[in-house]
Amino acid sequence: MSKTKFNVAVVGATGAVGEQIIGLLEKRDFPVDKLKLLSSARSAGTVLNFKGQEITVEEAGPDSFEGIDIALFSAGGDVSKELAPHAVRHGAVCIDNTNAFRMDPTAPLVVPEVNADQIDKHQGIIANPNCSTIQMVAALKPLYDSYGISRIIVSTYQAVSGAGAKAINEMLRQSKEVLEGRDANPDILPVGSLPVKHQIAFNAIPQIDKFQDNGYTLEEMKMVRETKKIFGDEDIAVTATCVRIPVIYGHSESVYVELKNDYELEEVKQLLAESPGITLVDDPAAQAYPLATDAAGKNDVFVGRVRRDLGNARGLNLWIVSDNLLKGAAWNAVQIAEIIAAKA
Amino acid sequence: MSKTKFNVAVVGATGAVGEQIIGLLEKRDFPVDKLKLLSSARSAGTVLNFKGQEITVEEAGPDSFEGIDIALFSAGGDVSKELAPHAVRHGAVCIDNTNAFRMDPTAPLVVPEVNADQIDKHQGIIANPNCSTIQMVAALKPLYDSYGISRIIVSTYQAVSGAGAKAINEMLRQSKEVLEGRDANPDILPVGSLPVKHQIAFNAIPQIDKFQDNGYTLEEMKMVRETKKIFGDEDIAVTATCVRIPVIYGHSESVYVELKNDYELEEVKQLLAESPGITLVDDPAAQAYPLATDAAGKNDVFVGRVRRDLGNARGLNLWIVSDNLLKGAAWNAVQIAEIIAAKA
Ligand SMILES: NC(=O)c1ccc[n+]([C@@H]2O[C@H](COP(=O)([O-])OP(=O)(O)OC[C@H]3O[C@@H](n4cnc5c(N)ncnc54)[C@H](OP(=O)(O)O)[C@@H]3O)[C@@H](O)[C@H]2O)c1
Ligand SMILES: NC(=O)c1ccc[n+]([C@@H]2O[C@H](COP(=O)([O-])OP(=O)(O)OC[C@H]3O[C@@H](n4cnc5c(N)ncnc54)[C@H](OP(=O)(O)O)[C@@H]3O)[C@@H](O)[C@H]2O)c1
Repeated sequence: MSKTKFNVAVVGATGAVGEQIIGLLEKRDFPVDKLKLLSSARSAGTVLNFKGQEITVEEAGPDSFEGIDIALFSAGGDVSKELAPHAVRHGAVCIDNTNAFRMDPTAPLVVPEVNADQIDKHQGIIANPNCSTIQMVAALKPLYDSYGISRIIVSTYQAVSGAGAKAINEMLRQSKEVLEGRDANPDILPVGSLPVKHQIAFNAIPQIDKFQDNGYTLEEMKMVRETKKIFGDEDIAVTATCVRIPVIYGHSESVYVELKNDYELEEVKQLLAESPGITLVDDPAAQAYPLATDAAGKNDVFVGRVRRDLGNARGLNLWIVSDNLLKGAAWNAVQIAEIIAAKA
Repeated sequence: MSKTKFNVAVVGATGAVGEQIIGLLEKRDFPVDKLKLLSSARSAGTVLNFKGQEITVEEAGPDSFEGIDIALFSAGGDVSKELAPHAVRHGAVCIDNTNAFRMDPTAPLVVPEVNADQIDKHQGIIANPNCSTIQMVAALKPLYDSYGISRIIVSTYQAVSGAGAKAINEMLRQSKEVLEGRDANPDILPVGSLPVKHQIAFNAIPQIDKFQDNGYTLEEMKMVRETKKIFGDEDIAVTATCVRIPVIYGHSESVYVELKNDYELEEVKQLLAESPGITLVDDPAAQAYPLATDAAGKNDVFVGRVRRDLGNARGLNLWIVSDNLLKGAAWNAVQIAEIIAAKA
């Protein structure tokens, strides 16, 4: 592009992720020339603020991308599938937060801490992994490099904001209903487009996204497939159980890894502490470990409860927490945009 | 004893577990002759109802157990350590819900579905395992018998009622504070007797009970040690991550097991469905799986999300949910009492 300022489009600007993207572009002082904010017809006309400037949200369409250099998509997979090719046609680089292109062999699937080198290989579209995958692979990267990883067994504790702005409202409304002694009325979760709804307030729902034929949910299979693609290693065995819990912001993960080589626990902690984008919070004596409420609003991935498996010398348990809207979506996308901008 | 009716003492009668024990003795029509309700001096004098009869709670002391046949303890480990020997001295059989005697080699550690045969070996005290252990081993027993189990990797999603009546109130109070836009004031959790407190409302706290020198919490080590003792098998490798989440009643567990032999998935489901005390809830097409809100108030252990590890032919994932105050404490204890009564 050979530019110093960029015309940027945010598709899904009125959503939970879009709001964070706009905030980060401002906070990080991203070199924006013009900012175009796009949504569906529902929110078109909404006025949003960017660096003190009022910008009117427009309805996204095939011709929204004329003159756009970088388009950040977070408006659902169908919108990305339909509109990203048009953005590419207009010469934009698309950074897509949805599931639409993640397993597409022509689209790099990027977590900058892990595989920033893949960014250059894009053919117009760079995929942002699923939120629960991003924080896990970011935390595991230093261990992968130092010891190798043979298997991962992960159980997640995922925030409702991962299901969008409406799911946050539903969880807060239900919490109020239960506290007032009324019935909680489930309306959206676990999956908006499916018929059965379950109470999320004061509950734990072991379903995120639709079930696949093998009994896993799509969210679980995303963690399996995306982890292999990001590490470029089909041999890592991954199994996942993904669970929604009544937390607003911040996914937590209980991760068991088996390394290929022996390790020293103190060395593992030091590697984590020294890795960019990772904050080690691990002091049992002080009852210090990562918490969703502490991670909310921060870009880093927080790791703690680092301890040996007592049965397997190469087994290791970790507790990994990050803000799903930031590192899990908006921040990872803006990080990629910053790398692209720096090279342009 | 050669009796048909029994004098029963409930120590900790005013607590979360004690309340459920009294309720179950009534509901199950346990052959009670006299019921003695005991607490600390704080609640002595409280009047509780049992089968329409008013019973005044008395302060527990060394001489509270004269004439008592069966004493059910749930007043904390220190109280059990101090008073259970006095109850035994008076000829009572003690069923202890606390951690005091679980690893004592003279005390059987019993989950009736798994090792009811151990009950007869008691020398006055029978220990009830930790709530998170009970539901896990009850669900794994049919798999242990049919295939053998080599390892267990478990991550828990535990309800606040597991920390007693005060922790429930704290979580509800904090939820209200957050919903009203105020700060949540942590006062009890994660561990009442430790200095650092964390918000539990809309959060996930990876600490239940105190940290041990190996970096595991006592709750996690209970799951490791008790599982081996209950199965009578020191070779099962167990590793655990125990997490408190904002649920009122019902612990959920994401359990990964490695079996010693190959299995057919449908056979595993059938075994679970046919096992006493277990309800299989596993129909992905109908979005049916165990939920804490559904398990609350029920005695059974609910199992679902039964699926193959995609990387290991002998690996299996399960989602196990049960009411921690019932099967996890009161019901398991009353089950043991029923077996003792039937044999007396
Ligand atoms: N939340 C997360 O943690 C997370 C993490 C990673 C990836 N993602 C992905 O990001 C996407 C959005 O997530 P979210 O949480 O921000 O959802 P959200 O809060 O529901 O927001 C959805 C956004 O998409 C827009 N949109 C919907 N349909 C559209 C259409 N036909 N054309 C143009 N815009 C449309 C909405 O505009 P209106 O206001 O007009 O409806 C809104 O701006 C999803 O694909 C999700 O999988 C989310
Ligand atoms: N909650 C669970 O899921 C669960 C599961 C398995 C095992 N347990 C175990 O059961 C025990 C009680 O748990 P909980 O949840 O019922 O706690 P809780 O709600 O705090 O109740 C504690 C009970 O113990 C009594 N007590 C306290 N100190 C006493 C003393 N010095 N002498 C006599 N009674 C005393 C209390 O009486 P006052 O009213 O006078 O204070 C109250 O009845 C704990 O050891 C816990 O580890 C709990």
